[in-house]
Amino acid sequence: MRRGRPGYDQQGILDVAVAAFNQYGYDATSMGVLADRLGLSKSAIYHHFASKDEILERALDEALGALEGVLEQTGAVRGRAADRLDLVLRGAVHVLVDKLAYVTLLLRVRGNTEVERRAVARRRAFDKEVTSLVSEAQAEGSLRSDIDASVVSRLTFGMINSIVEWYRPGGKEDADRLADDVIAVALDGLRMPTSNRVQQLLG
Amino acid sequence: MRRGRPGYDQQGILDVAVAAFNQYGYDATSMGVLADRLGLSKSAIYHHFASKDEILERALDEALGALEGVLEQTGAVRGRAADRLDLVLRGAVHVLVDKLAYVTLLLRVRGNTEVERRAVARRRAFDKEVTSLVSEAQAEGSLRSDIDASVVSRLTFGMINSIVEWYRPGGKEDADRLADDVIAVALDGLRMPTSNRVQQLLG
Repeated sequence: MRRGRPGYDQQGILDVAVAAFNQYGYDATSMGVLADRLGLSKSAIYHHFASKDEILERALDEALGALEGVLEQTGAVRGRAADRLDLVLRGAVHVLVDKLAYVTLLLRVRGNTEVERRAVARRRAFDKEVTSLVSEAQAEGSLRSDIDASVVSRLTFGMINSIVEWYRPGGKEDADRLADDVIAVALDGLRMPTSNRVQQLLG
Repeated sequence: MRRGRPGYDQQGILDVAVAAFNQYGYDATSMGVLADRLGLSKSAIYHHFASKDEILERALDEALGALEGVLEQTGAVRGRAADRLDLVLRGAVHVLVDKLAYVTLLLRVRGNTEVERRAVARRRAFDKEVTSLVSEAQAEGSLRSDIDASVVSRLTFGMINSIVEWYRPGGKEDADRLADDVIAVALDGLRMPTSNRVQQLLG
């Protein structure tokens, strides 16, 4: 490592690589481009990662591992499925805000390589678990059951994932506030309990 | 035009070009690639469009024009802002389903060229009008006002736009059903009116 250059550990290299992949696209970002950005030689990067593919794999694993962690934590909680779903949605918003660049990269993956296909498979498994949780909440009578559970799961995560398009750290909404907003829209809806709504609820 | 080849009008060329842009990316799709796909000579394409940029402009205009049309139609409707917002969200779902490939292309535009920047500006103007409608509905007391209007607008359209990621024509949900689902989630919420919710509404 050149004198006077900041040192990078694996995580530091990963952060810079993910930013570059998001900016230029994975294919367009060569190891040479990464080395330039880091002020390192290519061999210094190869000291930490065997290939560009391994960098991508580690980056996607960071986003996926965090999302899967939310499901694991929530699975251990007792109580109604609707309350566990509430926790999963909140947890996912926090993962998005905490790992914004990593989740952005994950959401752009289309399954063009073996590493990407494995990531897509893990995302699908995650979606499937969320859909199961929605079904369970519908069956226990705590969520409306007139919408297909997989459509509910897709629309809800569509809303959550869209946060990567516009959220910037340090803005007026922090992760807790944003999670409250997502829950408010998805679970309780935007409409005020006007008289006709209350009548409908009581009818 | 070569004998035995199907004829293409402007719209037909546009449909094929949009599919190619979505598959390979706009930059990676040359006029030569388009000519191959169409079974036309490049000069036959130039008979309809002055440049690849003009094809992109027309394609983005098709998506944006349809979305702007929803706002125009809705603006002419009397009644509460919340009901007009309901119509805008339903209309936007229909535009997505009807012009899936065109909206997919629009959502990927990042503002790298003059044509893209104009499209981004029109999208922002659309978002701003939706945000105004949300503010109006909050002011009239028909939508909850504890969430910032621009966040409401972003989350709601995040949900709607995510439909391009998974919707395939001919699936089990048609556009009307999908629009009902979006309205159900965004305006009324997923949570069933369990006792505590009814108490809260009456409290």
